[in-house]
Amino acid sequence: MKLLYPTSLALDISRIEGFPTLTLHPYDVKTPIPEDLIDAEILVTWANSAQNLSDAAKRMKNLQWIQSLAAGPNDVLSAGFDASKIKICTGSGLHDRTVAEHTLGMLLNAARRFYEMRDYQNQGKWPAHLGGPQPDRPKGAFTTLRDANVTIWGYGNIAKTLAPNLIALGAKVKGVARKPGVREPGVEVYSEDKLPEILKETDALVMILPGSESTKNALDAERMKMLPKHAWVINVGRGTSIDEKALKEALDNGVIGGAALDVFETEPLPESSPLWKCRNMVLSPHAAGGRPQGSEELIVDNLRRFFAAQELKNLWFGSGVGLL
Amino acid sequence: MKLLYPTSLALDISRIEGFPTLTLHPYDVKTPIPEDLIDAEILVTWANSAQNLSDAAKRMKNLQWIQSLAAGPNDVLSAGFDASKIKICTGSGLHDRTVAEHTLGMLLNAARRFYEMRDYQNQGKWPAHLGGPQPDRPKGAFTTLRDANVTIWGYGNIAKTLAPNLIALGAKVKGVARKPGVREPGVEVYSEDKLPEILKETDALVMILPGSESTKNALDAERMKMLPKHAWVINVGRGTSIDEKALKEALDNGVIGGAALDVFETEPLPESSPLWKCRNMVLSPHAAGGRPQGSEELIVDNLRRFFAAQELKNLWFGSGVGLL
Repeated sequence: MKLLYPTSLALDISRIEGFPTLTLHPYDVKTPIPEDLIDAEILVTWANSAQNLSDAAKRMKNLQWIQSLAAGPNDVLSAGFDASKIKICTGSGLHDRTVAEHTLGMLLNAARRFYEMRDYQNQGKWPAHLGGPQPDRPKGAFTTLRDANVTIWGYGNIAKTLAPNLIALGAKVKGVARKPGVREPGVEVYSEDKLPEILKETDALVMILPGSESTKNALDAERMKMLPKHAWVINVGRGTSIDEKALKEALDNGVIGGAALDVFETEPLPESSPLWKCRNMVLSPHAAGGRPQGSEELIVDNLRRFFAAQELKNLWFGSGVGLL
Repeated sequence: MKLLYPTSLALDISRIEGFPTLTLHPYDVKTPIPEDLIDAEILVTWANSAQNLSDAAKRMKNLQWIQSLAAGPNDVLSAGFDASKIKICTGSGLHDRTVAEHTLGMLLNAARRFYEMRDYQNQGKWPAHLGGPQPDRPKGAFTTLRDANVTIWGYGNIAKTLAPNLIALGAKVKGVARKPGVREPGVEVYSEDKLPEILKETDALVMILPGSESTKNALDAERMKMLPKHAWVINVGRGTSIDEKALKEALDNGVIGGAALDVFETEPLPESSPLWKCRNMVLSPHAAGGRPQGSEELIVDNLRRFFAAQELKNLWFGSGVGLL
């Protein structure tokens, strides 16, 4: 049995070896899979080109399992693989710490206004209004995480990793997700129908929603209006979950305080987008994740499960088991 | 007995009331103390003008105790008060959380390069090299706090507040201070003679040194050269502790990776300073603290000690007890 692993990241292959009937083969994710590897049963993907994937979907007749290292399965799903027969697993969990760190940085950038300080610095001007003696935690402003109400919409593994950092800085964290309940580290998570009450008390809204039809424009003009005028929106999930046109208007009209976005409807953000120059808009070029951590452990865990005919970790709902 | 409290910040005076022989009086920190208050025994200071303080030093003949809310006593000490007779207490501890939060923001700004993203955004350009798939924790670069060696030079209360946040993000924290030992939260603190060994393994050097003759130019050209070429220097202590001329040369010549400074030899930073435009230089306008938290509790604690003739908290060494 053959496993193809990508050369697009530095994997320690010695930590994957040891399954007797399995051979491990590197492949280039930007060119078609070579003929001598096309009969592989297992494909690990990372930053593959769309052409590589759609070509693989056509030519890899023996494929049983795709292990993506990306947080979501979107690139694999749209390549045309037969998801009713092929098990598709995501790299959910491999990006928790990197995305959480970036999100924390964006929240502090917003609260402490480093972006505005940068603009002054570039002009050789001292931004006196941002320094010196100042009011502590003034009402109607987002200036610190201490005592701030931070709502995480899309409360999964990244949120569980981020929340302790926020709580340590004094933030009051709530979650919003399909399934309500108390999640690690003791955060109350509400269902989406509670959004009107929660949003109006939110100082910073962190969006970590996956990309899907049901999350499209989840944050629309109506919901933006529920937020206080000083509230910031941080998006590290998928760009499609925010109505960008409504966001531009909300920023221009002071409906919300600001937005720090790592993801966009279209990436790279088109030069024609009005978002570039919006007031209190912080742009990050899909940089939150992009560097999976713990890939070898996930691959080994799933190889063991695969050979033991157990359920794979991070299996995309219904894939490979005829449920789709 | 009279206590004068400043109107330069919002104090909840109801939380200071209750000492039977004491009356509480507001005063303006930017104008001379009015004649009817000049006989006060206790002066609380915050963001006072130099003129207000030097005038008070001359005219307040009954003064027994100055409670500053600033982290250091420098403004009070340089105003000409007779420190051999008057007890001078600082606001050490009131700024721990705000400075720690700002420092964390500066570290993440440096690691995640938000300042560089901002420059691209201002030009309407997508900084592709900062996003997308990228190496995880590459050697010879400071891109994340995870597994980073962070050295805090000046390991006091701010460091104790900051260190747990850094550790939670995966950083390996060391301290440097005059007194070595293990400090909260279990961080090994080394004496300054260990700096050569410690600096060469440091990815980010956080300086929280107080301003004094002994800390002047503590980070000089020689010590900058001990740091790896990718190391960042963060200064939230006092500007005098870095040789700014040497820093500019170190930044220009790639001796270190970058610098994020909240404090400067001269503030505001003069327009003529070459620091504004240095490569990988992040400027913050003395904004880390500036908003004391818990002032009322400190004042009450020290009032109780004062009336009980016990040693005051945060007493500046030797002041008011004839030791100077």
